[in-house]
Amino acid sequence: MNINHEMENIYLHDIPLDKAWDLLVESLEAVGLWKPLESEGIPLENALRRVTAEPVWARISSPHYYAAAMDGFAIRAVDTSGASDRTPTSLQVDLKVTYVDTGDPIPKWADAVVPIENVEVIEESGERAIRIRAALAPWTHVRAMGEDMVATELVVPASHELRPVDLGAIAGSGHDMIHVWRRPRVAIIPTGTELVPIGSEVEPGETIEYNSLVLAAQVETWGGQATRYPSLPDDFERIRKAVLEATASHDLVLVNAGSSAGSEDYTAQVVESLGKLLVHGVAVRPGHPVVLGLVKCTPEVSSPAGAFVPVIGVPGYPVSTALTGEIFVEPLLARWLGRPPLVPQTIDATLTRKVRSSRGDDEYLRVTVGRVGERIIAAPLTRGAGVITSLVRADGIVLIPAGVQGLQTGETVTVRLYRSLADVERTILVLGSHDLTIDLMAQFLSQRGSRLSSANLGSLGGLVALRRGEAHLAGSHLLDPESGEYNLSYIEKYLPDVPVVVVGYVTREQGLIVSLGNPKDLTGLADLVKDGVTFINRQQGAGTRILLDYYLGELGVDKDAITGYEREEYTHLAVAAAVSSGAVDSGLGIRAAADALKLDFIPLYNERFDLIISLEHYESTKLAPLLEMLQNTEFRDAVDAIAGYDTAPMGKTIAEIG
Amino acid sequence: MNINHEMENIYLHDIPLDKAWDLLVESLEAVGLWKPLESEGIPLENALRRVTAEPVWARISSPHYYAAAMDGFAIRAVDTSGASDRTPTSLQVDLKVTYVDTGDPIPKWADAVVPIENVEVIEESGERAIRIRAALAPWTHVRAMGEDMVATELVVPASHELRPVDLGAIAGSGHDMIHVWRRPRVAIIPTGTELVPIGSEVEPGETIEYNSLVLAAQVETWGGQATRYPSLPDDFERIRKAVLEATASHDLVLVNAGSSAGSEDYTAQVVESLGKLLVHGVAVRPGHPVVLGLVKCTPEVSSPAGAFVPVIGVPGYPVSTALTGEIFVEPLLARWLGRPPLVPQTIDATLTRKVRSSRGDDEYLRVTVGRVGERIIAAPLTRGAGVITSLVRADGIVLIPAGVQGLQTGETVTVRLYRSLADVERTILVLGSHDLTIDLMAQFLSQRGSRLSSANLGSLGGLVALRRGEAHLAGSHLLDPESGEYNLSYIEKYLPDVPVVVVGYVTREQGLIVSLGNPKDLTGLADLVKDGVTFINRQQGAGTRILLDYYLGELGVDKDAITGYEREEYTHLAVAAAVSSGAVDSGLGIRAAADALKLDFIPLYNERFDLIISLEHYESTKLAPLLEMLQNTEFRDAVDAIAGYDTAPMGKTIAEIG
Repeated sequence: MNINHEMENIYLHDIPLDKAWDLLVESLEAVGLWKPLESEGIPLENALRRVTAEPVWARISSPHYYAAAMDGFAIRAVDTSGASDRTPTSLQVDLKVTYVDTGDPIPKWADAVVPIENVEVIEESGERAIRIRAALAPWTHVRAMGEDMVATELVVPASHELRPVDLGAIAGSGHDMIHVWRRPRVAIIPTGTELVPIGSEVEPGETIEYNSLVLAAQVETWGGQATRYPSLPDDFERIRKAVLEATASHDLVLVNAGSSAGSEDYTAQVVESLGKLLVHGVAVRPGHPVVLGLVKCTPEVSSPAGAFVPVIGVPGYPVSTALTGEIFVEPLLARWLGRPPLVPQTIDATLTRKVRSSRGDDEYLRVTVGRVGERIIAAPLTRGAGVITSLVRADGIVLIPAGVQGLQTGETVTVRLYRSLADVERTILVLGSHDLTIDLMAQFLSQRGSRLSSANLGSLGGLVALRRGEAHLAGSHLLDPESGEYNLSYIEKYLPDVPVVVVGYVTREQGLIVSLGNPKDLTGLADLVKDGVTFINRQQGAGTRILLDYYLGELGVDKDAITGYEREEYTHLAVAAAVSSGAVDSGLGIRAAADALKLDFIPLYNERFDLIISLEHYESTKLAPLLEMLQNTEFRDAVDAIAGYDTAPMGKTIAEIG
Repeated sequence: MNINHEMENIYLHDIPLDKAWDLLVESLEAVGLWKPLESEGIPLENALRRVTAEPVWARISSPHYYAAAMDGFAIRAVDTSGASDRTPTSLQVDLKVTYVDTGDPIPKWADAVVPIENVEVIEESGERAIRIRAALAPWTHVRAMGEDMVATELVVPASHELRPVDLGAIAGSGHDMIHVWRRPRVAIIPTGTELVPIGSEVEPGETIEYNSLVLAAQVETWGGQATRYPSLPDDFERIRKAVLEATASHDLVLVNAGSSAGSEDYTAQVVESLGKLLVHGVAVRPGHPVVLGLVKCTPEVSSPAGAFVPVIGVPGYPVSTALTGEIFVEPLLARWLGRPPLVPQTIDATLTRKVRSSRGDDEYLRVTVGRVGERIIAAPLTRGAGVITSLVRADGIVLIPAGVQGLQTGETVTVRLYRSLADVERTILVLGSHDLTIDLMAQFLSQRGSRLSSANLGSLGGLVALRRGEAHLAGSHLLDPESGEYNLSYIEKYLPDVPVVVVGYVTREQGLIVSLGNPKDLTGLADLVKDGVTFINRQQGAGTRILLDYYLGELGVDKDAITGYEREEYTHLAVAAAVSSGAVDSGLGIRAAADALKLDFIPLYNERFDLIISLEHYESTKLAPLLEMLQNTEFRDAVDAIAGYDTAPMGKTIAEIG
């Protein structure tokens, strides 16, 4: 079968990342494209962030003359010798004593300036004179010609990205134009029959085309000029035609594949038909169906860069798209711009959980990063190539190289940071249970100059993270069936050696999330075993799942009789989304999630959701804005406004344990 | 005297930096200007680097339907139960088994996708069917609705500077517009009768006006929009009129003072006449004559931000200008843009020499920074406020706070970096003697991805730096009068415990640099004592000065009889510049310096200039590009092309010592 055959092709031809890159570089070298593009002369005022194509040597000295460094009188130093407080020297203001402002040229005969505030101006024999009470060394308060730059000196080297002060220095050395490398022009062609433009109302099966927006912004960030083409359907001839047209006026063509698994094959076939296919599949995750090739320009059109134009087939999943930009496009633009490729800031961090990785691939693992006490913590994020929010939330990337099968919990890893170290330092890490108001908390904290980073591990996962010193605090709503109390017995059990402060946060309504109108007429958990009723569960360790199991036990309902009990989602909203899509009939979750997606809700229980804060960090300056915020009316009001929430417990110390 | 009085005013009113800042903030708060400017809705495609004015919540889920994650057949998982290699299950392709491409919606009745490569497509009773050899769990290869984002979830918070992936996520969550804070509009008005535009041919007394270029580039870098006004003469009425006009269409007005010491007073007077003068002088160096004020808009015109517009009087010396931008303008723009002010990356470093500082002022000390072995080294640069190249060369700033009188050699200081840590790590530090070709070396190395940072300490200073472990290598041309050999005996004396490799570099012609036509008819050092002949010397410890002293001794010439012997410059080019200006008749220096400024040259001696490389670093990967370069024909040719240089010794190992 043809599709089978093509799929094999892709995977069989996956080659290591470094080899793929070397192949691209060698091919570009062979056609004279592995070097900066042409240089162009531009006015200095447009040159910010451009890269110098040649060294800039001073055309004139600065200052270009001997200049007064103070307002005062230009004099000959020798004329002041012997002057002192007791024996002041008077000099007539005449041809050899003359007033100068700062910046004025020093007369040829003078070799010093006495500042105006150090002299008395007097009348002597009807003439103006100055009285000086200290002798001056020669060249006092004189700025030497060339003090800043001497003509012919190097001002800035070639391959230098111009900053504001560089522009000043270059202007001061007598230039008004500068030679910089031309900005690379990059065409971005999205393909995929399923694509619709940004802002469209979408139908099932349609995908909003935003990869070209991401790629264009990346290209601009890295110094190139991007052209976004309208998206094309999966049609060989149309893609071929668009690529060929784009080569006429661009230095690089990016063809973004559709989401269909075979759609990158179009790019490979188009490249093969127009030039040379170099690479069809790279052993990197996310992103392996990368296509690299060189396309010959048609004789009618001439590319700005030469007879060949490289084409990169960029995989269609959004995380793959963005990472392919970082891995292949950035270093290529760097070379064309004559600057070194970007080197990310790195930091060593402790990994919070085990990660398996394919031995054959370089894997780019997204992580959130923060400092907890003495250690820098890296918590892995979702790995799906379709989850662009994992890149939005990522503070950095851990590269798991091919040949390594995975990383262990507690292992030290090197993180390539997307944020500054300062951001990492001010980050508050909240792990544990998911609650919708955590986003609101992040929002309020960001306006207070603080940063909150959260990962959803479930209530029990949060306690484990606290025990391991991987979080500053955890959200938790673990019901103790024996006492009817929340969290405290779990803390005693799971955190025997970690002193914590339990701070009240909210109570919230838990219940069944069902479709609008409650078509299956559900009234409580007992109805979940009814024929034709499907359910979606939360993951193990989630407080909501523990609540469910407890009440199912109370009611004597058999879990195994519930269709979908084994299917897990990780958040209240994901459960609501499953109900909203019609995929399932119900799930247990909070009222706010049902409300958010305009679903119906059958309230069952009220539960307390606490913040468990490590005592070590409770009094730290880092957490102060968060604790303050819990006392803040504005924040309380914002939470109270969400259906199903009650902020009565907020900010109250419930217990200090350990 | 009026000028005296004003000068006093300035200095008497210098107030501490933090207090000046607080005054500005309080005053802006009082008039409702200490908050982000208005928000504006803009298309996502223009939103890169803009700051969100409100949180972005997902409008739709992504995916917004249950989607196939692979190309294959949508099925009901229950229909595959029991399937294995031995007992494959066959399913007819019909209403409950249907082909889907990746991204296609999953039919309501289906709950899994079996990938095309895991099935055989067969004919069964004349119908198409698929054969499956493994049972599927429900929801295998199905992307859940909301896997990436669920409608109503937070996508990015407010006060967030938008990066490429953020734009993608926002578009994917159903938005095509976004609310961001308006960019602040900043007027920049240069003042000073001495100013001429960039690119002018300058006469003595004229200054090229480039501060507005630096300020405008800073404003753009920090997210504002700059308007550069043509420069104005020192004329109260004209400045007043320009400021008033600028307030009508700008959020902030920067008045850049001229170079005359009192010229910032115009700004203060203008502000006083138009509104309220808040600060007239800040205890910060460089930059203390900063003026801060609020100006009332005229009733005819209405400012975009309100009835008041802040005015900052920016001091005229270029380093003061740039630092005033960093200290006052950046945090103000940050506030208006709703983002946190920039926090520079910092690093702890060892200071190479003692620095005195005024107890009353915060001082911003520019330093070069590099790693030498285990230590990060910070070497202070020129402190003159007029030397913009000190900012160009600076790798960072050390803040010496008011109340501290100075820093000691070897002290640990915190450097606010202008460069990335990666740049610091790849920096080769060359201290010691100044040679013109060091710039060329920097240029060649930058094209090899390496960075060379040099500071001129003289030959002896370079050896001391090597002893202290403050440099990787030093340039040196120290003549031993007894042996006629260069450097070796000095190394034995000054570096008893530091093993080094002495690598040959060049021989160069030393001689008298004199005006074109040699008007004083100088023929050698003996002529320096002739009547009416003035000289300029090099600093103590410079190889050229040791050479001079040696030959003066040989010739029996009395140093004290040389007019100008005590006047020191720090580089060959500075000596040549002094001669070129007519300030002195001659100096001892290399031919290349005379040639560079088109002066005459009387050759006297040939000397060897060596590179003294610490053995510890000689074989390091960091220095490898430099050693390679010494063998490189292209670099040799470039040095040979400079008059007075001979590269015969280049790259030869002269000695290994210690």
